[in-house]
Amino acid sequence: MMPFIEQCRQLLGDDYLLTDAATMGGYLTDYRQRYTGRALAVCRPADTNELAQLIALCNQYQVAIVPQGGNTGLVLGSVPDQSGSAVVISLRRLNQVRALDPVNNTITVDAGCTLQQVQQAADAANRLFPLSLASEGSCTIGGNLSTNAGGTAVLHYGNARELCLGLEVVTPRGEIWNGLRGLRKDNTGYDLRDLYIGAEGTLGIISAAVLKLFPKPQSQVTALAAVSSVEAALDLFHFIRSHGNDVALTAFELISAYCLTLVQKHLPQMKAPPLTNHPYYVLIEFSSQQNEIATMQSLETVLQRALQNNLTGDVVIAASLAQSAALWILRESISDAQKAEGKNIKHDISLPISQIAEFIAETDAQLQAQFPGSRMVTFGHVGDGNLHYNVSAPENSDVDAFLLKQNQINRVVYDSVARHAGSISAEHGLGALKRDDIVRYKSAVEMQLMRTIKLALDPNNIMNPGKVVMPQP
Amino acid sequence: MMPFIEQCRQLLGDDYLLTDAATMGGYLTDYRQRYTGRALAVCRPADTNELAQLIALCNQYQVAIVPQGGNTGLVLGSVPDQSGSAVVISLRRLNQVRALDPVNNTITVDAGCTLQQVQQAADAANRLFPLSLASEGSCTIGGNLSTNAGGTAVLHYGNARELCLGLEVVTPRGEIWNGLRGLRKDNTGYDLRDLYIGAEGTLGIISAAVLKLFPKPQSQVTALAAVSSVEAALDLFHFIRSHGNDVALTAFELISAYCLTLVQKHLPQMKAPPLTNHPYYVLIEFSSQQNEIATMQSLETVLQRALQNNLTGDVVIAASLAQSAALWILRESISDAQKAEGKNIKHDISLPISQIAEFIAETDAQLQAQFPGSRMVTFGHVGDGNLHYNVSAPENSDVDAFLLKQNQINRVVYDSVARHAGSISAEHGLGALKRDDIVRYKSAVEMQLMRTIKLALDPNNIMNPGKVVMPQP
Repeated sequence: MMPFIEQCRQLLGDDYLLTDAATMGGYLTDYRQRYTGRALAVCRPADTNELAQLIALCNQYQVAIVPQGGNTGLVLGSVPDQSGSAVVISLRRLNQVRALDPVNNTITVDAGCTLQQVQQAADAANRLFPLSLASEGSCTIGGNLSTNAGGTAVLHYGNARELCLGLEVVTPRGEIWNGLRGLRKDNTGYDLRDLYIGAEGTLGIISAAVLKLFPKPQSQVTALAAVSSVEAALDLFHFIRSHGNDVALTAFELISAYCLTLVQKHLPQMKAPPLTNHPYYVLIEFSSQQNEIATMQSLETVLQRALQNNLTGDVVIAASLAQSAALWILRESISDAQKAEGKNIKHDISLPISQIAEFIAETDAQLQAQFPGSRMVTFGHVGDGNLHYNVSAPENSDVDAFLLKQNQINRVVYDSVARHAGSISAEHGLGALKRDDIVRYKSAVEMQLMRTIKLALDPNNIMNPGKVVMPQP
Repeated sequence: MMPFIEQCRQLLGDDYLLTDAATMGGYLTDYRQRYTGRALAVCRPADTNELAQLIALCNQYQVAIVPQGGNTGLVLGSVPDQSGSAVVISLRRLNQVRALDPVNNTITVDAGCTLQQVQQAADAANRLFPLSLASEGSCTIGGNLSTNAGGTAVLHYGNARELCLGLEVVTPRGEIWNGLRGLRKDNTGYDLRDLYIGAEGTLGIISAAVLKLFPKPQSQVTALAAVSSVEAALDLFHFIRSHGNDVALTAFELISAYCLTLVQKHLPQMKAPPLTNHPYYVLIEFSSQQNEIATMQSLETVLQRALQNNLTGDVVIAASLAQSAALWILRESISDAQKAEGKNIKHDISLPISQIAEFIAETDAQLQAQFPGSRMVTFGHVGDGNLHYNVSAPENSDVDAFLLKQNQINRVVYDSVARHAGSISAEHGLGALKRDDIVRYKSAVEMQLMRTIKLALDPNNIMNPGKVVMPQP
């Protein structure tokens, strides 16, 4: 391997080829700190050309590549396995905003820009880049695209996929495909862009992207509404969508009462609004081109009508930006609060919206029957059909013993998801973590189509091998 | 070939296997009636299972397949070549609405349903399926998806691609991939859906789809506004998007004054509003959850402010549904009026919105210099960057002689499109018509990626061969 490493060093320079355990450390462990892999080296190319040469070198020596952005993924997609034979290629030095076209409402960015950097560049041009995630300060746009990230703004603006117009990709042979188009319409052949988006770096490495920008809302108003059931939450969702004075409903997040209890217990500084006796709450956000007073009036009006129609219980409308931020922090703190309560088992699932209530009722009951005392921490982007359906161990029980049942619990949840025509990974991807699970839920025809594509575009299986799909059944 | 045809007959029944010239006729000639191909037979399977068996049979005998929906395509994608060795497979008998889920806001339909049929089924459930095209009465949803159709509602709702959540596809081996998911979020592997969408039947045949539905607008209001230039039209576009009281801007169509002149000349019954001295007009549509009076007020207000800012000249707001329909018919009549004026050369192109004005000025000048007297009939979905940039022969000239220059004219236009980072096919696809043109404008890397995918998914090259991309360079 020396000639390979030496050639990498010549290409990248000493500072950007890491080979010792100390400097590689952070690149080898996943975000949740549950897994540490090994690698031949961590490579940090400076730009697309260097990246392309590096990949050509890997191809020549048949060295496996693990592409990595901010390494904030939740499915072990961006860390190497135990073999120690792969290189991690970090995209973080590709971090330039290449161009911003305010008339076309597009921004062209390197893959290693953080999501926050892209948001800020858009904001500086009085535009909105709407993708928004808890990890936006450290995740990169290349990773967001490679995993087709979701987040809280999907309801109105779509997933990362819908926010991208064009890509630059380096193929496993080290060729650069320049597909950096800023076009809303382009029907000239196969949709390569969407093939690379969500492929988790297994078909090539996204090195840059053209992203859509939007007019910046003039005001955003947030409310927390109590609801009597999941069904009621969905009724409220449809009611607001049709009676909101055309104001964009940009978030509709379901939060179970137990989530808020956990937040109040572990993060009392969060100042949750006084809880009533409702099993669920929804966080509602309106975004408008009008001023705040008008937007608040629209939200008040529709919630008042919803109240009259018994679609909601108590409602708190944030009266200031600070109150609004507090409601959002409350929502974003659920994971931390659950973590403080103890290790837990997470499921990032999606369902047809019409199946959500039945899914929750049925699966809650199954879990209680098989794992009595399990505590459900249920929240999520319910307007998109996306639930974070997390399970904590019974109170005062042996958490580690509970975690040993993870596979059985996953099976119950995923089988129920499948019966309700849902997906076992709504926004996190498959990575290495769900690679084998998915085989149970996709048809043989679909798995074979995926393998065919993998084999065709990465015939030597050097691009993030072992993630998403194995080339052989 | 007899055993093949006989097996087809056994499978389909006599009535649904057409082999004589008279009954095959309509399936062999393209929509614009410029090309007639030949075929071994026209096959009309009853459902997905029959379709799958038929394709397996074609694969066994290595018979080429030309999939066909409503046969309304404009790029010779749905008619066979001259070899007479292919079968046309018509999807028109697969015409059932399989399911409509009002809570999930989805409809599941067979590929052979006409677009109008889907619109009507949605409407009957008090929902909107927004895809809308001139040929909606006869085009099919399978064709719309296979060509990623655009139309007039793309601005707010997106192309056919953005309106589709799931597909059922029959592969070239005759296997059925059931990807009929009704999920807004699903990150479990490669995006097969978007690979088949826009592939023009060259990778497999779409047999059914799950489509997104939307709340039905309570009111729609239309206006025609005069503008002093293309730049002014785009300024107006951005102004309305940011100052329209949150009402959805669902259409923003550019129409050159000459287009309206042609309509008034050839279709005087159209009653265009009195023309002022402006070079361009825009057709503006607002769609709202509020009542018509409120919507009209919003449109009036924003147009008044635009007028005060010198962004628009005279404005006509449709005061009734009938007036609104009349404005739309005016827009939809441009093609017919141009046809009545004589045969012409059409270009369906797209550009970054920031390049449109410069593109038009520059390309108009080039064409005038090289083909003096050429008459530009320029209109289109300018909010999406999509122009129908059509060229008529000089007045009182020899039209057929002019048409002989089509390739030279295309070259001028397409080269200019490429210089302005645009696409030579915005919404019509490549088919056989632009298959060779595109090779000039896409990189070798991109063409090779397309060939790799074609070869991987259709190794025997039986799916619509000769369309989109040739398997060998």
